[in-house]
Amino acid sequence: MLIVQKFGGTSVAGADRIRNVARRVVETHEAGNDVVVVVSAMGATTDSLIRLASDVSENSHPREMDMLLTAGERISMALTAMAIQDLGVGAMSLTGSQAGILTTPDHGEAQITEIKPGRVKEGLAEGKVVIVAGFQGVDPESKDVTTLGRGGSDATAVALAAALKADSCEIYTDVDGVFTADPRVYPDARKLEEVSFEEMLELASAGARVLMARSVEFGRRYGIPIHVRSSFHSGEGTWVKEKTMEQAIIRGVAHDASEAKVTVHGVPDQPGVAAALFEPLATAGVNVDMIVQNVSEEGRTDISFTVPRADLTEAKSVSAEVADKLQANGVDVDENIARVTLVGAGMKSESGIAARMFRILSDHGINIEMISTSPIRISCVVRGDQISEAVSRLHEGFLPLSPPTEEA
Amino acid sequence: MLIVQKFGGTSVAGADRIRNVARRVVETHEAGNDVVVVVSAMGATTDSLIRLASDVSENSHPREMDMLLTAGERISMALTAMAIQDLGVGAMSLTGSQAGILTTPDHGEAQITEIKPGRVKEGLAEGKVVIVAGFQGVDPESKDVTTLGRGGSDATAVALAAALKADSCEIYTDVDGVFTADPRVYPDARKLEEVSFEEMLELASAGARVLMARSVEFGRRYGIPIHVRSSFHSGEGTWVKEKTMEQAIIRGVAHDASEAKVTVHGVPDQPGVAAALFEPLATAGVNVDMIVQNVSEEGRTDISFTVPRADLTEAKSVSAEVADKLQANGVDVDENIARVTLVGAGMKSESGIAARMFRILSDHGINIEMISTSPIRISCVVRGDQISEAVSRLHEGFLPLSPPTEEA
Repeated sequence: MLIVQKFGGTSVAGADRIRNVARRVVETHEAGNDVVVVVSAMGATTDSLIRLASDVSENSHPREMDMLLTAGERISMALTAMAIQDLGVGAMSLTGSQAGILTTPDHGEAQITEIKPGRVKEGLAEGKVVIVAGFQGVDPESKDVTTLGRGGSDATAVALAAALKADSCEIYTDVDGVFTADPRVYPDARKLEEVSFEEMLELASAGARVLMARSVEFGRRYGIPIHVRSSFHSGEGTWVKEKTMEQAIIRGVAHDASEAKVTVHGVPDQPGVAAALFEPLATAGVNVDMIVQNVSEEGRTDISFTVPRADLTEAKSVSAEVADKLQANGVDVDENIARVTLVGAGMKSESGIAARMFRILSDHGINIEMISTSPIRISCVVRGDQISEAVSRLHEGFLPLSPPTEEA
Repeated sequence: MLIVQKFGGTSVAGADRIRNVARRVVETHEAGNDVVVVVSAMGATTDSLIRLASDVSENSHPREMDMLLTAGERISMALTAMAIQDLGVGAMSLTGSQAGILTTPDHGEAQITEIKPGRVKEGLAEGKVVIVAGFQGVDPESKDVTTLGRGGSDATAVALAAALKADSCEIYTDVDGVFTADPRVYPDARKLEEVSFEEMLELASAGARVLMARSVEFGRRYGIPIHVRSSFHSGEGTWVKEKTMEQAIIRGVAHDASEAKVTVHGVPDQPGVAAALFEPLATAGVNVDMIVQNVSEEGRTDISFTVPRADLTEAKSVSAEVADKLQANGVDVDENIARVTLVGAGMKSESGIAARMFRILSDHGINIEMISTSPIRISCVVRGDQISEAVSRLHEGFLPLSPPTEEA
């Protein structure tokens, strides 16, 4: 078997942890597998490099920032290779560029376009463990080094697994797997044994941070099973794959408290109004998530949408300009919101899930401010300070403590 | 003009110093020159990376060590590029590999074999300052990253200047230039305005640390004048070049207290004995410096040689083995030695310099234990605790305070 194993920044933060990672890798290798390892930068390295840059300059230098940040994985991958060699197994580290990770030229948020893993295959053919720097690649046109942005190391691992036609991709993390809810919010949440790519995509978009949507997309597109598991013990984690054995109606309850709501009041209810608002927002680079338009009263309506809090200032000023042009009544901003989401492929066939969700929330005095649905997901925006209550009550309602289907 | 400027680790240790370097570079650029900048890793970065590696592993991992250490220049070069861009001048950083620095495969002590500076020239043609990582290159066969060992960044700068046919190479350092003696040992030592390649080679070999012999060799071979100057002010430093205006008899007094002496006593005085000793030492990687063989008494002789103290343990054990085989009387080790050296191209034509040197030392009660000469150098090994005295008295004798030729 060919297995790609990815270890994040906390897993390689310090000599002891790097030696742990090496033991884990060597066990897998000695069980007769070919192993490719993807590592992130050690613990706080990336942050301290960013701090160094901001000490030197207040301006944006995308090319040089990527040159700087890619030093981080270079350090962790070399140390990991040393620790593996110490256990008697051949190992070599490769930068993203050396591993053939080709990307778009977008510094800081490049997308992987192609992988030419010639040197990785050579290393494997020599019986070596190959360690590849996560998060980085190279633009084949300019030959400049690029970074992949948030969740980049996971994306490297899954994309590399796809290019190598690996049997699986293991994502080692500081949690035990994917849970039915965030255990910090709902302590009785349970680890899932498996979840479909489709459900994992919805969970990731709805706020589950364990795996980014872009990595799940790669896994889905190329059919690479992803095993999300703990770097602290060898117990099974959660398998993310095409088909799951059990098709649960509800897979989990995700939440996201990182957004804010913008409302444009008293917009004329006529064609082209939505475009007039959302086109300039897109141009300004604001990531709009949910959009709700109320029913019209006296020819006017309210449009509400949510954005990441980081984009709020920009969203507010663009909306105010548009409101002016449209002679709307004004713009309101609400930062005290959160979104709770039910995800489950079983929803497609089961009816009444939405109604049951709304009932549970209302029974506990939780007001719903916005609603959005997909075939396997229902999201509600509620008051920010009620989010724990919402997650807990929905989990109790849909995923009771002795679940009929979840535990094998 | 095309100028290569090299800044060492102390010159880029911290944001303020990096901004200083940037100002220096931009001044040179705005005076109408094309500028290529070579930087070392920031201050203590290399040491802390070495410490990280030794935390992870006690073994030697040459390839991965080079992968690790090259993160150091990556950081400093990216930050330097940012600081230059902030001053309104285009800048791009290149790794050794990107700059086309091809080397032998010897990790940790690679030699530059060829430079293919295509991307450097492209950058210059676009009007940019190009920042190149010092100390590193790439083995074109394996495509593995290499480091050049001690003095590697200087070698990068001078070799790059040669490949680009630069008009000069400026080595910025924390001293004002090359001195007639180490000012910490002899405070009245004077800065030299110029020194020939030949003399600088001898000074470097004799212990002057400001410029390593390998860089001087590059400068000499390709006729690139090297300007050794302070990174703290813009005053002239020392020019190292082919011909100097003034051919001083004595250029300076260098010393080296980093070696130890090994003596093999009572070696049979017959052909092949020296080879029997120095071949196994070479095989063991011991760097033998001076060698002296005494006159024979009763068919036996003593052979003494000096080695860097780092090689002493190895040198001692190899010598003891050989002494056994040759049925010599035994091996002695002496760590309390130092070497003082007079350097000057004028010696070639002037006679009596050696005799005068020995007289000065003897007049001050300094015993000479070993002597070695070249056409432009005389070195004497003396007791280690007499080295300051030796340097001072020789400086006074050969380079008196109002020198007849040195100051213009």
